Amino acid sequence: MKAMVLHRPAPVEQKPLSYEDYDLREPGPGELLIKVISCGVCHSNLHMIEGDWVKYGVPAKLPIIPGHEVIGTVSMAGPGSLHREGDVVGLSPLYSSCGRCDYCITGNEHLCDSVQITGETVDGCYAEYIIAKDEYVYDVPGNLDLETSSPLFCPGVTAYRASKLASLGPGKDAYVIGIGGVGHVALQTVKLFGARAVAVSTSEAHARLAEEMGADEVVSTDREYSGLSERYGRADSVLVFSPSQKAIDTGLKLVKKGGTLVVGVFGDIHEFRFPTEITVRGSVIGPRKDMKEVLRLASDGKIRLKVTKFRLSEANEVLQRLKNGEIIGRAVLIP
Amino acid sequence: MKAMVLHRPAPVEQKPLSYEDYDLREPGPGELLIKVISCGVCHSNLHMIEGDWVKYGVPAKLPIIPGHEVIGTVSMAGPGSLHREGDVVGLSPLYSSCGRCDYCITGNEHLCDSVQITGETVDGCYAEYIIAKDEYVYDVPGNLDLETSSPLFCPGVTAYRASKLASLGPGKDAYVIGIGGVGHVALQTVKLFGARAVAVSTSEAHARLAEEMGADEVVSTDREYSGLSERYGRADSVLVFSPSQKAIDTGLKLVKKGGTLVVGVFGDIHEFRFPTEITVRGSVIGPRKDMKEVLRLASDGKIRLKVTKFRLSEANEVLQRLKNGEIIGRAVLIP
Amino acid sequence: MKAMVLHRPAPVEQKPLSYEDYDLREPGPGELLIKVISCGVCHSNLHMIEGDWVKYGVPAKLPIIPGHEVIGTVSMAGPGSLHREGDVVGLSPLYSSCGRCDYCITGNEHLCDSVQITGETVDGCYAEYIIAKDEYVYDVPGNLDLETSSPLFCPGVTAYRASKLASLGPGKDAYVIGIGGVGHVALQTVKLFGARAVAVSTSEAHARLAEEMGADEVVSTDREYSGLSERYGRADSVLVFSPSQKAIDTGLKLVKKGGTLVVGVFGDIHEFRFPTEITVRGSVIGPRKDMKEVLRLASDGKIRLKVTKFRLSEANEVLQRLKNGEIIGRAVLIP
Amino acid sequence: MKAMVLHRPAPVEQKPLSYEDYDLREPGPGELLIKVISCGVCHSNLHMIEGDWVKYGVPAKLPIIPGHEVIGTVSMAGPGSLHREGDVVGLSPLYSSCGRCDYCITGNEHLCDSVQITGETVDGCYAEYIIAKDEYVYDVPGNLDLETSSPLFCPGVTAYRASKLASLGPGKDAYVIGIGGVGHVALQTVKLFGARAVAVSTSEAHARLAEEMGADEVVSTDREYSGLSERYGRADSVLVFSPSQKAIDTGLKLVKKGGTLVVGVFGDIHEFRFPTEITVRGSVIGPRKDMKEVLRLASDGKIRLKVTKFRLSEANEVLQRLKNGEIIGRAVLIP
Repeated sequence: MKAMVLHRPAPVEQKPLSYEDYDLREPGPGELLIKVISCGVCHSNLHMIEGDWVKYGVPAKLPIIPGHEVIGTVSMAGPGSLHREGDVVGLSPLYSSCGRCDYCITGNEHLCDSVQITGETVDGCYAEYIIAKDEYVYDVPGNLDLETSSPLFCPGVTAYRASKLASLGPGKDAYVIGIGGVGHVALQTVKLFGARAVAVSTSEAHARLAEEMGADEVVSTDREYSGLSERYGRADSVLVFSPSQKAIDTGLKLVKKGGTLVVGVFGDIHEFRFPTEITVRGSVIGPRKDMKEVLRLASDGKIRLKVTKFRLSEANEVLQRLKNGEIIGRAVLIP
Repeated sequence: MKAMVLHRPAPVEQKPLSYEDYDLREPGPGELLIKVISCGVCHSNLHMIEGDWVKYGVPAKLPIIPGHEVIGTVSMAGPGSLHREGDVVGLSPLYSSCGRCDYCITGNEHLCDSVQITGETVDGCYAEYIIAKDEYVYDVPGNLDLETSSPLFCPGVTAYRASKLASLGPGKDAYVIGIGGVGHVALQTVKLFGARAVAVSTSEAHARLAEEMGADEVVSTDREYSGLSERYGRADSVLVFSPSQKAIDTGLKLVKKGGTLVVGVFGDIHEFRFPTEITVRGSVIGPRKDMKEVLRLASDGKIRLKVTKFRLSEANEVLQRLKNGEIIGRAVLIP
Repeated sequence: MKAMVLHRPAPVEQKPLSYEDYDLREPGPGELLIKVISCGVCHSNLHMIEGDWVKYGVPAKLPIIPGHEVIGTVSMAGPGSLHREGDVVGLSPLYSSCGRCDYCITGNEHLCDSVQITGETVDGCYAEYIIAKDEYVYDVPGNLDLETSSPLFCPGVTAYRASKLASLGPGKDAYVIGIGGVGHVALQTVKLFGARAVAVSTSEAHARLAEEMGADEVVSTDREYSGLSERYGRADSVLVFSPSQKAIDTGLKLVKKGGTLVVGVFGDIHEFRFPTEITVRGSVIGPRKDMKEVLRLASDGKIRLKVTKFRLSEANEVLQRLKNGEIIGRAVLIP
Repeated sequence: MKAMVLHRPAPVEQKPLSYEDYDLREPGPGELLIKVISCGVCHSNLHMIEGDWVKYGVPAKLPIIPGHEVIGTVSMAGPGSLHREGDVVGLSPLYSSCGRCDYCITGNEHLCDSVQITGETVDGCYAEYIIAKDEYVYDVPGNLDLETSSPLFCPGVTAYRASKLASLGPGKDAYVIGIGGVGHVALQTVKLFGARAVAVSTSEAHARLAEEMGADEVVSTDREYSGLSERYGRADSVLVFSPSQKAIDTGLKLVKKGGTLVVGVFGDIHEFRFPTEITVRGSVIGPRKDMKEVLRLASDGKIRLKVTKFRLSEANEVLQRLKNGEIIGRAVLIP
């Protein structure tokens, strides 16, 4: 099959992915061979491909096929699988977990110490085919558009999980800082939990996307996030999805006493002066139940995505655009 | 009356408190005049007296009488008070709140923006008498020792509230870092919520106090908290009451995925790398309901205090000892 | 002033309310005299007026003016009130509470043992004026229609509280059984908490109201609620607001394992076979914070009411219509 | 092997269990053959054996070996099992679940629709050997007494789960009604969650057991539970484990507003007058995580059992004694 393969991490300017033939093994017991229909391009793909996470041991193998948000059809089902050839399924970054530990038996399998991550510890979906574990794929509702719905499997569940971890409800307000792939979904999921959603963005184009996605209020700001708390007040919850340390620092200042800051991107907390009764939580993808809820909500028309399609072979160029901040919503690769 | 009065913040080495006569007004409507039996000496008194918090506007007035954990008897009750002369009552740092805002009407009056803090924005209990609001004093259970129980009103409620904000329960573990005035109570309150309590201290004397207070395990460590997570593993909750930035940084490394770090002292969070699904919460005193629960638990013999008594006029010397780390448990002043 | 006064409970067919002159005292400290703009007619008014609750000591006095959901303007403010003449305010059934007990200091003042109930233990709003406690009235948002918004103060908060007590969220389903005064609001509040709302009604007219109010699905059924669980399956939550024992019994059968039945009307639970891990909760009005949230949601256009206006003097006739099931949504009296 | 086999449900007076040879198949993939060390005798065994549950389809097969709380050693491990010959393991009533449904992937596998129940739908432990699923057995801590700890696997987890579902905490009170096999553990688990435990029993012998197990207060009462709320007041939580409808009805009257009644036995709720803000919950065994927590707590000495040993062949006589109320704590069968 054809795939975009990473042999050595490097800046995307150097086009580190090569479009080449790649041998795929047969699916084993409880595994599925999936023909990829659509694969989303995540900002964390960029981190891995450029080598930012080598210090964390990611990628765990080389060469590797990146990509962790995918929709496809089952081509072949290994023994013991509950799915059959032709089923339309999706896969998230949560490739598998041990199934036995305390996290796994309490619905927190995304925190399992033995978790495998699609496209980071095993081959991902920048490819024509991918092998997945039957227990970790999801049935895709029949009314979803298959080419543009793959981002439900990463930004969808990430935004939803972060919303669950926040302090939301009909009487509450939430800031969503950063209106990219995850943020443009979080605006919607925050509202699904009843809260009023205020979008904060340093980009005019992203601010317009926030309006399109139904934000109750949209704040365009400079890269310093100057004077936000003075002008707009503080909120019960702040969710940060902008990959900028300044955004996290600003988020902390926008949380009410008793409220919650949820950080869904890589960065540090600085100057968190204690004691003051606020809560800061990190959020990273989510368990299978959250993923299933996202699919149902999307099927009910309650989560929409802004998606631009590219060809699989264009992955290097798409990553470059993402790095430049030129992708509005999410890009997907179509093999 | 006699009181220890602060006229100008200064290092305790300069004995900033002067023992002098002080005029007290009469209690107004809904107020009580309380004759002080015992007044605890809190580490935050030290911060205020030495001027560390001038930048935060504390003290809010000068001269001021410090002290915010007190037991006494009602000497005179203003009109409309429900208490009567002779009642034995206590007062915490929560001197009063507005009673009307969203925090106040939901049992979070300690977060009210109009909160008054005993000994910081109004005169406190380093004195023979104190005036308090009838609605913010508590009946002291008859079986408590009055001279040694005043610390229930600050370390007691602080430790208890922090425990409520942690992730505790019969199947869980908690580290308590810093076994001073609050920490030696937190070891007990953490266990009241069902958790296994592991005390961590850099002081041999404090480690012995932890054993005396019933810690399930006691870890003596160096000031760098070296190798704790390697040797002892991570826990569902970590509560930090040691006024050291290093303790907070260490606490963060000792929290399990899905777990909670509660910080009950002044300091910053550094290097909180996201995203990872952990929770960090600040905790600061607590609402009246928590204070009432602490009093009942103490009355039932479930919270004990390690207390050393001093004379009111010795306040400067006691603060010096506290600064030197020479107070085991809590010091109280007896007028 | 003119009022509709109850001298002796009796069936509404006998027109137990008399339109007469009634002397009102002056507002005392912390009290307000409010000129009534609109007063809702609640099904529980009917219970009290017809004598159903004499066994529970309601009404607590005779003669009494019924009515507990009101909007009006402040005519006179007693000393110490924070409101001023001309302010537009509302009052709910929660007339006052003690302010001191554990319920009151934890935001559950509606459960206070000393609670006073508007129109049941003190005079209500079937009148030109009403006296209220300053601390228990609410500012009415400027964009609300004053004549038709008074039902926010009983069905509004009742539906909202019941929704808070249910198991709701974006991934969940809820049945609302009974689409009367409370039910037609509950359909909306259930959705505000993210759930999918299925209305169940034995009346065609009420079923149409449910559609108008945005129910995701509407089920018309016979008075036996036959075969609902077989046809429609069970849900995470069921909220019952139909004053029929059959509705409650049916509700119990419609709850999923792990789910919640909330009962907001008078009735018993029968045949609740244990053990099975489901939850049953009673719900009755709600605390002030919930009332404030309802007002904000209504102001944001997220809660709508179906209201028919009548003259104050028509109260007997309106109650008769209510008894006959002829009121769609809610009736209000305009003095 | 030898087993006590039920061929036809009948009153225990007729000795329905026969001690006979029974053929056991080999363990399949992911299964274990366990040599029984100890098997507890549960009150629900009595219900099944006497035919009370035929109407619910229990037992699901005949002949059947009853018994669902067991400790034993692994004799043979089928392919794919993580346990090995000689491992000491335990098994609860939760024999297996589907592993795929929403309950299973959220740590509520005890609510799975496809759950198998040890000794009710598959053969249980009134036998020398039992076959179990590797994923649903638990490692027994080395410091537990193996012959007397098997009741941890049913009363242990049942009492613990019910306590989790109640409203408990350091500032709260709980009644435990019925001090039998489950109740004598619940007294302890309620305290592990911080609450004050008040035991209520109609039997002097059971009341003495409650004292021995550390109840904070013990109330002996008549079979009508007369005047309890008047004499002892109401509590935040009431847990009912007495198989008597009167106990459940009484429990309902002993719950505070805002509190919770947990019912862990078979029976109905009657006369639950709504609306009033209380919660009623059924509880039935618990998921694997709860079972693991129980084992750890027992290993830490925090849960104790009162156990009497009998020979396996005495099962009919033991059930007769249980029916007569003559078993104090729990009986176990030793093959």
